[in-house]
Amino acid sequence: MSGSARLIGVGVGPGDPELLTLKACRALRDADVVAHFAKTGHDSHARAIAASHLRPGVTELPLAFPVTTEIAADSADYGAAVGAFYDGCARQVGAHLAKQRCVAVICEGDPLFYGSYMHLHVRLAPHYPTEVIAGVTGMSGCWSAAGAPMAQGNDVFTVLPGTLAEGELARRLGETDAAVVMKLGRNLPKVRRALARAGRLDRAIYVERGTMADAVLMRLADKPDDGAPYFAVVLVPGWETLR
Amino acid sequence: MSGSARLIGVGVGPGDPELLTLKACRALRDADVVAHFAKTGHDSHARAIAASHLRPGVTELPLAFPVTTEIAADSADYGAAVGAFYDGCARQVGAHLAKQRCVAVICEGDPLFYGSYMHLHVRLAPHYPTEVIAGVTGMSGCWSAAGAPMAQGNDVFTVLPGTLAEGELARRLGETDAAVVMKLGRNLPKVRRALARAGRLDRAIYVERGTMADAVLMRLADKPDDGAPYFAVVLVPGWETLR
Repeated sequence: MSGSARLIGVGVGPGDPELLTLKACRALRDADVVAHFAKTGHDSHARAIAASHLRPGVTELPLAFPVTTEIAADSADYGAAVGAFYDGCARQVGAHLAKQRCVAVICEGDPLFYGSYMHLHVRLAPHYPTEVIAGVTGMSGCWSAAGAPMAQGNDVFTVLPGTLAEGELARRLGETDAAVVMKLGRNLPKVRRALARAGRLDRAIYVERGTMADAVLMRLADKPDDGAPYFAVVLVPGWETLR
Repeated sequence: MSGSARLIGVGVGPGDPELLTLKACRALRDADVVAHFAKTGHDSHARAIAASHLRPGVTELPLAFPVTTEIAADSADYGAAVGAFYDGCARQVGAHLAKQRCVAVICEGDPLFYGSYMHLHVRLAPHYPTEVIAGVTGMSGCWSAAGAPMAQGNDVFTVLPGTLAEGELARRLGETDAAVVMKLGRNLPKVRRALARAGRLDRAIYVERGTMADAVLMRLADKPDDGAPYFAVVLVPGWETLR
């Protein structure tokens, strides 16, 4: 369609197909190739969100994460396997760019904020014309669904992974006005204890599949169990009137 | 149009009119009343972004911030004046809701993330059906324009106001993987020193009007002067390969 090489990171937002931007829709209409990451054996979430905006017959390039569960995530072998995977993805995308095609890489949320697209960006942006189309982040989708005023004025806002040690989580939660804790899964009991130590458990909101029809939203203090998918989040809204 | 009371906080994104979501466009088409905040004597930025999506002849409700420069921002008088202003805005919006109208309050960026809409939300959402339409944040617009990979994996991400004391800024910049420093203006020399103390000045990117045609983007270390508008930001990308 375009006749010239172009890499576009396209944020497709948090899940609701209506939260695509006009710019993302246009990029999907104009792209020669649409690439998307997915776990091996699974459909791409980003593709599902963007499906109704793909041009019929457009060339698709699925990029399937290798199954690395047998390798410890903090080992050098894991790093090497993941690096080799992204090198291979960049070669596949680069082959289309070398043929003067426009490649849209679709990403859940925002491409440069906790997104896999970044691994292609750092490898290919030095060599080809590149554009990034910002998207609504997953966390914006969650606090909008919850109607939770997150941060205002001079608030400090912090995103924390649930993988941090309990004391570290508690310390950081205690010195930020607003927070999002990601990567819950089996970290939820620890996150709950850290919020209690920081005196923030009362404000915390648990959100699962924030912008989906089957979203789960509740005060974390009211959640009776510690079961949580990896991609659930806890919101700690910073709102206090007139700060 | 709608025949039933509804308050909708509509994020219109960081500035590029193409970064409106499909959902925001629909809300603007369907609203009976479109409300927008602006400084007294100035046009609303949010209205300018959304202008081409307003229904011709739609009722508009401009909400003009009072000029409070003669009152110190940390004084009780300032808090009272601002609170009274938002109370008055909520009464004006509430009068339309009481007449069973759908009122879309348009907001730059994301409504619940450093947005004035929150002051209406906390006053009116307990009394009327309310929806929040997430938007692309100003900071996403900035790092997308800069092509700066911000955060990945288990990164800690922090938003800091440039109003913090230099030592506090330096400490917090030193213990986060990625950061955005807002509210620069005359705080820029202090922010620059804090970044240097934290060993992060080399990575810092200065961004002014990130998603506008006249955007200014440069390494902060290369910026020859300390002039900065209040709404400029500094990005500290957290990217390191294979983390």
